[in-house]
Amino acid sequence: MADAARVETLRHFRQADLKAESKRVDFDPVTVADRGAEAAMRAVLAERRPDDGILGEEFAAKAGTSGLTWVLDPIDGTRGYISGTPTWGVLIALSNADGVVLGAIDQPYIGERFYGGPGRADMLGPMGARDLKVRATTDLADATLFTTFPEVGTLDEGRAFARVADEVRLTRYGCDCYAYALVAAGQIDLVIEAGLQAYDVQAPIAVVEAAGGVVTNWSGGAVHEGGQVIAAATPELHRAALALLAQGR
Amino acid sequence: MADAARVETLRHFRQADLKAESKRVDFDPVTVADRGAEAAMRAVLAERRPDDGILGEEFAAKAGTSGLTWVLDPIDGTRGYISGTPTWGVLIALSNADGVVLGAIDQPYIGERFYGGPGRADMLGPMGARDLKVRATTDLADATLFTTFPEVGTLDEGRAFARVADEVRLTRYGCDCYAYALVAAGQIDLVIEAGLQAYDVQAPIAVVEAAGGVVTNWSGGAVHEGGQVIAAATPELHRAALALLAQGR
Repeated sequence: MADAARVETLRHFRQADLKAESKRVDFDPVTVADRGAEAAMRAVLAERRPDDGILGEEFAAKAGTSGLTWVLDPIDGTRGYISGTPTWGVLIALSNADGVVLGAIDQPYIGERFYGGPGRADMLGPMGARDLKVRATTDLADATLFTTFPEVGTLDEGRAFARVADEVRLTRYGCDCYAYALVAAGQIDLVIEAGLQAYDVQAPIAVVEAAGGVVTNWSGGAVHEGGQVIAAATPELHRAALALLAQGR
Repeated sequence: MADAARVETLRHFRQADLKAESKRVDFDPVTVADRGAEAAMRAVLAERRPDDGILGEEFAAKAGTSGLTWVLDPIDGTRGYISGTPTWGVLIALSNADGVVLGAIDQPYIGERFYGGPGRADMLGPMGARDLKVRATTDLADATLFTTFPEVGTLDEGRAFARVADEVRLTRYGCDCYAYALVAAGQIDLVIEAGLQAYDVQAPIAVVEAAGGVVTNWSGGAVHEGGQVIAAATPELHRAALALLAQGR
C-alpha cells in the first residue's frame, strides 16, 4: 500500500502544477496527490483485503466484516507537502475493536519507512535498515519536544503546551507525523499535539509503542480516535508532561 | 567539499553516541560532526585552493591572498541535526570583496544538493536533476512564509515577523537553510530570519539569487555579513514584506 501511495504522492510533489483546494476555511489544502494516493491504497485493499473496513481521510468510510479496519492518511502534513518540505508522510494503520494493531509511516521523497506492530519495530532509509527504539530520557530538562504549529490548538491547548515547552531542553516545530517517527527512532523525546483525527494518530501510535514509547491523550487515556495527543519516550517523561498539561484545568 | 563534509555529518547523524556540547548558555549544540565536517572541507581547500581565505563557523578565520574567501557552515541547523530531522544542511559559499560569488546548500541524508552561481541554478536530488527557479507570487495573501523559530529573534523582531505572518497564506517553522532551498526551488515564497551569521546566509544568498529571488536585510540592503535576513521570490513580495517589517520603527 505504501508503494502504491508513493507513486501518487511523488508524481505531484514539487511540481509547479500542484493545485491546492481548500476544504476548510482555515486552510487545509487537499491535493490531487492526496486523493490519488488514498485511491491507490484502497485499490490494493479491494484486491487483497476485501472484507476489511477502511477509514480514510479523503473518501467515505467503508464498513468491513472481518473486524479489522485500515486507517489511512494518504498525506499527513499537506501544508508541508505543498511547501516542498520532506517531513510529510503516508500513514497506514490496521486496527481492531481494541485499538491499533500495526502501522507504518512512509516518507516517499527521502525513501524512509517506519514500521511498528507485533514483533517488529524497524525502519528502512537512506542509511539502510535499523531497529527502532526510544531513548531513555526521564527528565524534562533533558528532553527534546516537537509539535507541528506553535499555536498547537485552542488558546488553552497552546498554554498547556507552553508549560511543557518551558521545561524542556529544546522545542522544535513543523514536522507532522515525522516527529513521531523521530521518537520511535530514539532521536527526540516528546510530541504534543491537539486536534488530531484517528487517521492522523493511529500509525504513529503503532510505531511509537512498538519502539517502546507511550502514546495517550492528555489525560493518559486511549487516543486512537484522535484529539489531544502526547507521545513520550518513557513513562517518566509521559507522567511529568501530563502533570503540566493538566495544571490549567 | 560537500562530498567530504557529508561523510563526516552522516557518520554521526542519528547515532546514539552523539555528544552535543553547549557553546552558549542558550543552547547552541556543537557536535563532533560539525567540527569534523568543517575540517574535511578545509583539508580540500588546503590542497586545491591554498591561496583563498576561509571563514568557517567552527575554526579560526584564515586570511587568503587571492581576494576570494570560502564561507563555510558545516552543519546549518545543528538543533535539527541533533533531533534527527532532515532539513539541516552543509553550506558552502565563495565570496569576494563585492559579496557572494557562488554557493551550495547540501542535505546529505536526503541526498540533495542545491547550487547557485554564475550561469547556474540547479539541484540534484531523489527525483534527479532540476533547474532552480523561484515562483511568480507577487501578493502576500498568496505567499508561503518560513522561519526557523517562532520567536524569530528579539521581541521587536518577533513582532515585525508577526506583521508579515498575519498577511500571508501559510507560515511554517523549523527548516533552517532548507527553507532558502525551497524558495529557490519555487516551492515557497518568503524566508524571514534574524540573528544570522555570514556563514549562515552566504550560500542561501547565492542559491536564491541565482534562481531569480531577492535576498537582503530588513532594510533592503546587502546582508552577506549576516543579521536580519529576508529572502523573497519576487521584488513585489520583497517590497510588501519590507514595508511591514519596517512599520514598528
